Amino acid sequence: MTLLYLSSPARARIWQPMLQSALPEIPFWDGLEAVEDPAAVRFVACWTIPDDLSDRFPNIELLISVGAGVDQFDFDALPEGVQVVRMITRRIGEMIRDYVTLGVLALHRDLPTYLGQQRAAEWRAHTVPLARRRRVGVMGLGQLGLAALDALGNFGFQLSGWSRSTKALDGAKNYAGMAQLPDFLAQTDILVCLLPLTPETRGILNADLFDQLPEGAGLVHCGRGEHLDPGALLEALGTGQLGSVMLDVTNPEPLPPGDPLWSHPNVILTPHVATETDFAEGAEFCARVIRAHLAGAAIPGLVDKKRRY
Amino acid sequence: MTLLYLSSPARARIWQPMLQSALPEIPFWDGLEAVEDPAAVRFVACWTIPDDLSDRFPNIELLISVGAGVDQFDFDALPEGVQVVRMITRRIGEMIRDYVTLGVLALHRDLPTYLGQQRAAEWRAHTVPLARRRRVGVMGLGQLGLAALDALGNFGFQLSGWSRSTKALDGAKNYAGMAQLPDFLAQTDILVCLLPLTPETRGILNADLFDQLPEGAGLVHCGRGEHLDPGALLEALGTGQLGSVMLDVTNPEPLPPGDPLWSHPNVILTPHVATETDFAEGAEFCARVIRAHLAGAAIPGLVDKKRRY
Repeated sequence: MTLLYLSSPARARIWQPMLQSALPEIPFWDGLEAVEDPAAVRFVACWTIPDDLSDRFPNIELLISVGAGVDQFDFDALPEGVQVVRMITRRIGEMIRDYVTLGVLALHRDLPTYLGQQRAAEWRAHTVPLARRRRVGVMGLGQLGLAALDALGNFGFQLSGWSRSTKALDGAKNYAGMAQLPDFLAQTDILVCLLPLTPETRGILNADLFDQLPEGAGLVHCGRGEHLDPGALLEALGTGQLGSVMLDVTNPEPLPPGDPLWSHPNVILTPHVATETDFAEGAEFCARVIRAHLAGAAIPGLVDKKRRY
Repeated sequence: MTLLYLSSPARARIWQPMLQSALPEIPFWDGLEAVEDPAAVRFVACWTIPDDLSDRFPNIELLISVGAGVDQFDFDALPEGVQVVRMITRRIGEMIRDYVTLGVLALHRDLPTYLGQQRAAEWRAHTVPLARRRRVGVMGLGQLGLAALDALGNFGFQLSGWSRSTKALDGAKNYAGMAQLPDFLAQTDILVCLLPLTPETRGILNADLFDQLPEGAGLVHCGRGEHLDPGALLEALGTGQLGSVMLDVTNPEPLPPGDPLWSHPNVILTPHVATETDFAEGAEFCARVIRAHLAGAAIPGLVDKKRRY
């Protein structure tokens, strides 16, 4: 019974000693070349997996993502018996909370306009509504969406949330399913995307969605680049249907040097830094997952393979 | 007994009907040319005042600032009997809370660096500490400073506050007086200035102060431009003693077109928009002040003329 690790050497330098100390009975095999007996591999920790994973390692029980999200896995190719785990750490929630708050406040307070004026050395003030008059809608109500709503609530924003199924939200209106998406969008001045990437949500930030927002709405996107139709985004910015956006993810990623988003005056762009996994926190989480599995207890971060998050 | 109003026509269009309705017994004289009897002027609402105010109007009892702050008044020229009132409205506190949070999160998450990379179309991530590992210090612990600390506390920042006298702070270390300023500065990664402008605080953001911060510290300044030594600011940015700053006020103001701060890569600059007074909320406040004064009750926003805030 061994753990096969398929990720960076930098992460391995933290993971290997921590996991060997936490689970001394389970050998840590770093990389495919370290595998002594394919049949012994029961746990795989990785970001991406070889295509022929289940052929090579017939006894895998747990596939543990070393980053936030599991959208990099091909769920159709996974054997029935393999359970998939996404990383849930305190750090990820805290960093997303901070980034989303920064993004919403930046758009709320017209920062893209002032950055443009700064480039032009122009001193000119604009009136903005108070936070309690601004409607902010969060798409995706998992751990991260709830943390974002909680942080935004402290500023008095008028909050709502949208997700696949109805959630009990404290201090925010809840919209659920595709049927309620139009109503949710129609009352959202600043939209925050924290959806998981699934076949249902791929490309969801498209022309049809942007058109349903109030004119001049803002977008803070820290889901995945593949949620986004980049042509529709530029078109909506061009017509003013979207007023300004803060993007942490792009499609493709990294954004190519000549892409017009780099220099768009109404776009603030960060290079996929809204959250990062801490190697040590990740190693602790991985040990916790394996221990729970071995004990037959509830596995933290266990993914619903049908919903894919 | 009349109110003399010396401010903009735009504000007058809101103030005149509201004050006449709230205080029908007190005539509202809009501008010096409207004064029928100088001896009847008991209340003056203004941003700046004529030099010979007390000669012209010997019976002034209340001088009410129509904006946040009273640093525009020449306290030495005011007669003994005149009481000075600064505007306190819910809006000012809320807007400062939002701006300071935006500024601290922007510096905390390295936004000036990413804005520079965006200009250069460079996709490169940097590691940042978690909010709970970042030390934020707020100078000025009046209504605004406390609102800022309260908002920042929700992100888990390690907080401290500094002011003239000791305050009881909830969840933040308190430093008081010039004697404790060095200790306060030495443990502040991001400094927020919300001080009132007084003879004691004019020029306080100078080379000596910057040198006492940890190297690479951040500054969010939404006090007054005159708190700032602009040469020292540029020097500290140049040596890296200050890592990045977000400025809402400058010295002088507006910032002249050729000033190097406009194009400094480590500076985010907004044109004195951290807070604005809402005309209607201001008129309500003014009526409340006059009513309290007439009733002999505690006057909201009353300024200590010796401390000048």
